Amino acid sequence: MKLAWYLSAGVIATFCSIGSINCGNILVWHTEGSHWINLKPVLDTLIDRGHRVTVLVHNASLYMDPKEKSSFSYELFNVSISFEEMSAWFEDWINFYLYEIHDLNQLQIHWKEYNFLKKDSEVSLQICDGLLKSETIMRKLKEAKYDVLLSDPLFLGSELVADILGIPLVYSLRFSIAHMWERLCGQMPSPPSFVPGVMVQLTDKMSFTERLRNVLFYVSQDMMAVYGYWQEIDAYYSKIRGKPSTYCEMLGQADMWLIRTYWDFDYPRPFLPNFKFVGGIHCKPPKALPEEMEEFVQSSGDDGIVVFTLGSMVKALPKEKENMIASALGQIPQKVLWRFSGKKPDTLAPNTRVYDWIPQNDLLGHPKIRAFITHGGTNGIYEAIYHGVPMVGIPLFGDQPDNMVHMKAKGAAVVMDFHSMKTQDLVDGLNAVINDTSFKENAMRLSRIHHDRPISPKDEAVFWVEFTMRHKGAKHLRVQAHELTWYQYHSLDVFAFLLGVVLFCTLLFVKLSLLCVQRCCYGGKSKQE
Amino acid sequence: MKLAWYLSAGVIATFCSIGSINCGNILVWHTEGSHWINLKPVLDTLIDRGHRVTVLVHNASLYMDPKEKSSFSYELFNVSISFEEMSAWFEDWINFYLYEIHDLNQLQIHWKEYNFLKKDSEVSLQICDGLLKSETIMRKLKEAKYDVLLSDPLFLGSELVADILGIPLVYSLRFSIAHMWERLCGQMPSPPSFVPGVMVQLTDKMSFTERLRNVLFYVSQDMMAVYGYWQEIDAYYSKIRGKPSTYCEMLGQADMWLIRTYWDFDYPRPFLPNFKFVGGIHCKPPKALPEEMEEFVQSSGDDGIVVFTLGSMVKALPKEKENMIASALGQIPQKVLWRFSGKKPDTLAPNTRVYDWIPQNDLLGHPKIRAFITHGGTNGIYEAIYHGVPMVGIPLFGDQPDNMVHMKAKGAAVVMDFHSMKTQDLVDGLNAVINDTSFKENAMRLSRIHHDRPISPKDEAVFWVEFTMRHKGAKHLRVQAHELTWYQYHSLDVFAFLLGVVLFCTLLFVKLSLLCVQRCCYGGKSKQE
Repeated sequence: MKLAWYLSAGVIATFCSIGSINCGNILVWHTEGSHWINLKPVLDTLIDRGHRVTVLVHNASLYMDPKEKSSFSYELFNVSISFEEMSAWFEDWINFYLYEIHDLNQLQIHWKEYNFLKKDSEVSLQICDGLLKSETIMRKLKEAKYDVLLSDPLFLGSELVADILGIPLVYSLRFSIAHMWERLCGQMPSPPSFVPGVMVQLTDKMSFTERLRNVLFYVSQDMMAVYGYWQEIDAYYSKIRGKPSTYCEMLGQADMWLIRTYWDFDYPRPFLPNFKFVGGIHCKPPKALPEEMEEFVQSSGDDGIVVFTLGSMVKALPKEKENMIASALGQIPQKVLWRFSGKKPDTLAPNTRVYDWIPQNDLLGHPKIRAFITHGGTNGIYEAIYHGVPMVGIPLFGDQPDNMVHMKAKGAAVVMDFHSMKTQDLVDGLNAVINDTSFKENAMRLSRIHHDRPISPKDEAVFWVEFTMRHKGAKHLRVQAHELTWYQYHSLDVFAFLLGVVLFCTLLFVKLSLLCVQRCCYGGKSKQE
Repeated sequence: MKLAWYLSAGVIATFCSIGSINCGNILVWHTEGSHWINLKPVLDTLIDRGHRVTVLVHNASLYMDPKEKSSFSYELFNVSISFEEMSAWFEDWINFYLYEIHDLNQLQIHWKEYNFLKKDSEVSLQICDGLLKSETIMRKLKEAKYDVLLSDPLFLGSELVADILGIPLVYSLRFSIAHMWERLCGQMPSPPSFVPGVMVQLTDKMSFTERLRNVLFYVSQDMMAVYGYWQEIDAYYSKIRGKPSTYCEMLGQADMWLIRTYWDFDYPRPFLPNFKFVGGIHCKPPKALPEEMEEFVQSSGDDGIVVFTLGSMVKALPKEKENMIASALGQIPQKVLWRFSGKKPDTLAPNTRVYDWIPQNDLLGHPKIRAFITHGGTNGIYEAIYHGVPMVGIPLFGDQPDNMVHMKAKGAAVVMDFHSMKTQDLVDGLNAVINDTSFKENAMRLSRIHHDRPISPKDEAVFWVEFTMRHKGAKHLRVQAHELTWYQYHSLDVFAFLLGVVLFCTLLFVKLSLLCVQRCCYGGKSKQE
């Protein structure tokens, strides 16, 4: 960070003197799961730099625990949905992808997914309502005079609260489906010819039919949102603000978008000055393993180890899948560490040990690591990129299949289909990424790109949060496109005008020519007559 | 710079160990004037970091002197144009804007400018030819095994030489007219609805007629280039490469574009991952003034000083302009330091001193500075932004009028028309920027934006040059748009196909409906008959 430099240069009024306390006052929107994992290191650094951080959390949160010891304070609010309802809804979602999806056709899957998105909006609004209707907490938030609101827009409502509190808004975002928020609301240009929408499972190198699929994906997702599940949000936002408002317009008010990818993972694409790519915030060098685990790892000899996890969201797999996977793992010479809850599979081989929890980053950074079997969550993929580890992907839901398409396209992974894969597929996949050196080389190439940037992703994220506080927003980075209608943006009115002029001139020319011909021929004739 | 960090982390193979010599081998393309001023600090830093830098220079160069003592070595080549011819052509260009332009109409001005651009291409190709036809130097360049070629694409040919030598290419660019190179060749999206073309003298907030003007400006400049003065370059490049090649396609091969502006000066706009905005590279804190000059500056008391320069290119003004300006300067209470060559104007007042050369940056950074009268060159504007000094612009040619539109739009300058301005206009302009505090406040706001970035522009430029060497290019930042035709880029083939499908379905539906109607009605009728 260059903060020390411009402090000493004395040219600008700085917001925060490092070392002093209470210099910035940061409000953080509630979030969940892997999104929370990603935000935490930024908050810790902000606190280390002397800022005060308050995190909003509701009483039905699945992953955030306000009783947990931490350096930031929590502001708890009550919501009308219960913890049990939240858990049940979440489990429904997981079970759909683990058990039900392979019995449905594409149309049924899309319909179910649309309903999940609709339900997600409803739950989010219920949570938002809990906060906005609590006069005590809203008064407390107003009195605290926060300098910025930091949020993941996946958990909606932060844009409304930032507006009510009259403070700048910084987003930390992994993605929206088909880049809808970034594209439609943030005005980030995304030509469908080389920017595949997130979740469409395409790369930036598309054939004609793939480009066609991408265009249809953009259009269908936009239609479903704008004319579907966004409408309820629009109505809610309008009601709260007391004037016609749209969700998209409010999203577009964000000062800064910290996107949690980088060009190691993402395909190069156009973006805007208030979009910063800070993928890999949570990655760090490995620490030593617990003694027992280190012994097991060392026992692998030259063959090394394989680490296997399907993330913190999936607690159990269908029994026959567990056995199939366990028996595949038994067929490779490596030792395997499997993050696994529940009863051990019957087919578990001696080379495989299961653990309730594993120090994933420390294992991926261990010299004996050979491959990582992953569900394809962005956090896990980023740890593999950071340490240069080739992957076998078994994606389940959400962005996971699309994430693994990225890694496969960059030559650092092979991908399995969870529902159709057989024992031999997994054995072959593992042998490929371990023995074909191109996978390791490509993973190392991504790792070099990841590390070789002018400023670390965490420092960059912290810098732009502080920047937004220092300058009370970042409006000078906001493109004028926000003030244009869609037809003005694409200059359609200008082209229509030019077309009109051309048509008018052509018509005039034709008319005048006809008139001339008439005068010359018929005029002459009538004279002759 | 984070170099120390990733060196210590040992994760990536680094290109250059700081402290050792001969670690990178950098070739620099010949350049001129203010472009050279901007490149030099980057080269000095690269040398300080242990790289070897060789600068190509030709024997007719107006501003580069291979005999000058410097830390980099020069490689001199001969060209068929003489120094005198170069000087004469350059003076023609200056004199056109100083003396002739106000007697011509817009069409005549455009025609003259087109011919200047055409002549510029011809001279550039002549220079390029001098290098390429020198077998000795080309052999020397090949044998030297350079790691990167660094160039300002305004001086064409570097893309051809990088291709011949098979080495990566990094551009350092201020602008191309209407962003032509960046847009058409670099694939940087530039919607004309909010990205005004460079030199059109519009801001990013455009009315309908201004957007119309911007579209016509884009189109006319593109046509003049693609179907005009680029054709000769295309033919030359094809001849040298021995296969059909276009200038634009070769420009698009550049690995990295270091753009010499930033969001303090430029309007926010979409860009790509291999475009880095490093405006203000040459700016630095002020040094102490020469004793005599400091005395004069101090004698200004609370009124302070005004610094006036029209840049290094303009040696003399029309006599009546000089006198008009001198008499205006005499009417303000500030002391004025005027960079001026030639005989002192008759109307020079006691508060004004003329100097053959002034330490511009040190004066702009002096506590007594109140305003800067400038021709609007980017280097001078950036020094004013760096030090937060409001400006009075007297733009003459090139990008200067457009640059001053930027500063006026951002509230940090007033702008004069060189040809029509009167004494009182200049007095009023100066009094406005000195006494109306909003100009100073806006200049300070731009200064804060300028200084408040995660990495200094010079460090960022050096980082990306070294990055390109370390990774032997930066292809992972290159968008796939380069591989698409213009109609594929805009998905026109996809939309045409979809339109076709819709038309076909509609036609089929109409046909089938007609058939049904026919069957039902006429079929029935015939039965009845």
